[in-house]
Amino acid sequence: MSETLVRFGIIGCAEIARKLSRAIALAPNATITAIGSRSLEKASRFASANNFPPEAKIYGSYEAVLDDPDVDAVYVPLPTSLHARWAVLAAQKKKHLLLEKPVALSATEFDTIIEACESNGVQFMDGTMWMHHPRTAKMKEFLSDEQRFGQLKSMHSCFTFCADADFLKNDIRVKPDLDVHGALGDAGWYCIRSILWATDYKLPKAVMALQGTVLNEAGVILSCGASLYWEDGKVATFHCSFLSNLTMDITSIGTKGTLHAHDFVIPYQEKEASFSTGTESAFDELVTKWIQQPSKHTITTDLPQEALMVREFARLVEAIKAKELKPENKWPTISRKTQLVLDAVKASIERGYERVEVGN
Amino acid sequence: MSETLVRFGIIGCAEIARKLSRAIALAPNATITAIGSRSLEKASRFASANNFPPEAKIYGSYEAVLDDPDVDAVYVPLPTSLHARWAVLAAQKKKHLLLEKPVALSATEFDTIIEACESNGVQFMDGTMWMHHPRTAKMKEFLSDEQRFGQLKSMHSCFTFCADADFLKNDIRVKPDLDVHGALGDAGWYCIRSILWATDYKLPKAVMALQGTVLNEAGVILSCGASLYWEDGKVATFHCSFLSNLTMDITSIGTKGTLHAHDFVIPYQEKEASFSTGTESAFDELVTKWIQQPSKHTITTDLPQEALMVREFARLVEAIKAKELKPENKWPTISRKTQLVLDAVKASIERGYERVEVGN
Repeated sequence: MSETLVRFGIIGCAEIARKLSRAIALAPNATITAIGSRSLEKASRFASANNFPPEAKIYGSYEAVLDDPDVDAVYVPLPTSLHARWAVLAAQKKKHLLLEKPVALSATEFDTIIEACESNGVQFMDGTMWMHHPRTAKMKEFLSDEQRFGQLKSMHSCFTFCADADFLKNDIRVKPDLDVHGALGDAGWYCIRSILWATDYKLPKAVMALQGTVLNEAGVILSCGASLYWEDGKVATFHCSFLSNLTMDITSIGTKGTLHAHDFVIPYQEKEASFSTGTESAFDELVTKWIQQPSKHTITTDLPQEALMVREFARLVEAIKAKELKPENKWPTISRKTQLVLDAVKASIERGYERVEVGN
Repeated sequence: MSETLVRFGIIGCAEIARKLSRAIALAPNATITAIGSRSLEKASRFASANNFPPEAKIYGSYEAVLDDPDVDAVYVPLPTSLHARWAVLAAQKKKHLLLEKPVALSATEFDTIIEACESNGVQFMDGTMWMHHPRTAKMKEFLSDEQRFGQLKSMHSCFTFCADADFLKNDIRVKPDLDVHGALGDAGWYCIRSILWATDYKLPKAVMALQGTVLNEAGVILSCGASLYWEDGKVATFHCSFLSNLTMDITSIGTKGTLHAHDFVIPYQEKEASFSTGTESAFDELVTKWIQQPSKHTITTDLPQEALMVREFARLVEAIKAKELKPENKWPTISRKTQLVLDAVKASIERGYERVEVGN
């Protein structure tokens, strides 16, 4: 195995780990070295089903992966309620950390993870894949363009999908002891991130959940929404749900331009993705049609976004290993902000849709 | 002039009356018979600038149009604060009534207009043109389809445009004594109508304005938004503004399907309009792409939507004149519901973003 490849261990055999296993295999600077599950048999089955390299080690515990000196970084797809325990332990074992979202049960809990990463000099990144698609950078270029977009005034984001009966009964995302944030932590995470992304990660001063939250019998959120407010008057809304047809939109409206994307979390296709923009859109003189229609922009990519995420994470890990650079602080910072807004929305729901100031 | 043409009078020379003059000329069952302005010269200039038929009568008052026995129907593009006075008078003079939106200062005031129309047996319709585009019927077909769309769960609508300095200083829509509802009455009217349209005109039980309303110095709304709540758990949000780039979206998300349109109020082009739909949208097995992309549907039309509106209105007027049919009640009913929701949103803003029950 080449010295330049970052060696990943995976702890847990969640569905999403299948996608990440493929992503690690696709990323040119990463390889899978080990997988651990509480059941050795399950880990072994997972490794064969997902084409692990024959030399990959199979462990019957998470600890064994963290103790393996051949593991540089771990990918943690465990339920949210287990994040703090295993993420902190991984950092203490000097493993760089790629952690699934939502990153923790709360920002306060997440701070223990950040502290562990900082004091052990390991890189942290959460598993928000769309951040790494080249389309995202292109969209951001548009939003940052004074001439084409101007100042952001309002934003709407939604991510819904229609969970089947089995999901609604058995998935970890509907279990209060596993992923207590439900649809807010899963789909809502992406909505919140997209809004923060569009606002240059400036935290809103306050949020108010929208009424009409749907909870399951155990009190886990199946559908909810919120409005977010900034000091300068910007307003954003989002809606997330396990109970509606698959939809994932971002709409950013600025003083001079408008951005639309309809597949922002997971692009329609692996190798290309589109978005549309309008600038100084206007009607003809009689207001019977538009002078100019929005333009569609299509961005191609050789690697799917999840492999680009792994590649970027591994690049940072390599730099730390080879050049003794410090971990890139951007990634834990935006994870924490996303969690802060998520916490505030959750608090607003719990307090009967009160306005809740966002912490810091 | 053929007996079968419905003869329109126009009172007032607003900008929007130019578009309607053309629409009346385009509609096969309508003709322009008269225009009245407070200034005879202005009316005369308007008639020549807008290619009125040479036999059209030019009046120096609104009353003269209403008193003309050759006028079957009047189009009223006056500022909202003048609607009740002139609409009621028109009805009393037995003129059928095509009234610009917002229809009145409040639903209570609008009731005086409805009463006048009912007691005088004249047809009422508001000027919401997009209702009459064949695309709208096609979109509604999709929303009504149990198999393709299922039950509506959430809806988002926005209509924003970037008013220039002259508009923000001088337009009637920013004057408290003319169009006191500002952006809510103008752009917001369409958002509210689209939401009611998608919900089969079932009124929400309550609304809550979103915080962050922007008012001008005179207290007129330049930008605002709201969330709407139904008994069955449906949630809708909208955003309307004079301060952002031209954007007009509807997004309806159902249990099985999703509808998107990005030019719902005024289509990009006069002769065709599109929307997109997805049904039982899903990812591939590894959740790396969509199995099926939403489909785009394009609907063509010979006449622009404003001419289709005039044609439909004139058809109803003809039926009343020729067959002594009663006026179609659908149109005043949906105008009234739109106004009721608008009133509730306004009340919520005025009461510091309280939840406000929608009247009936």
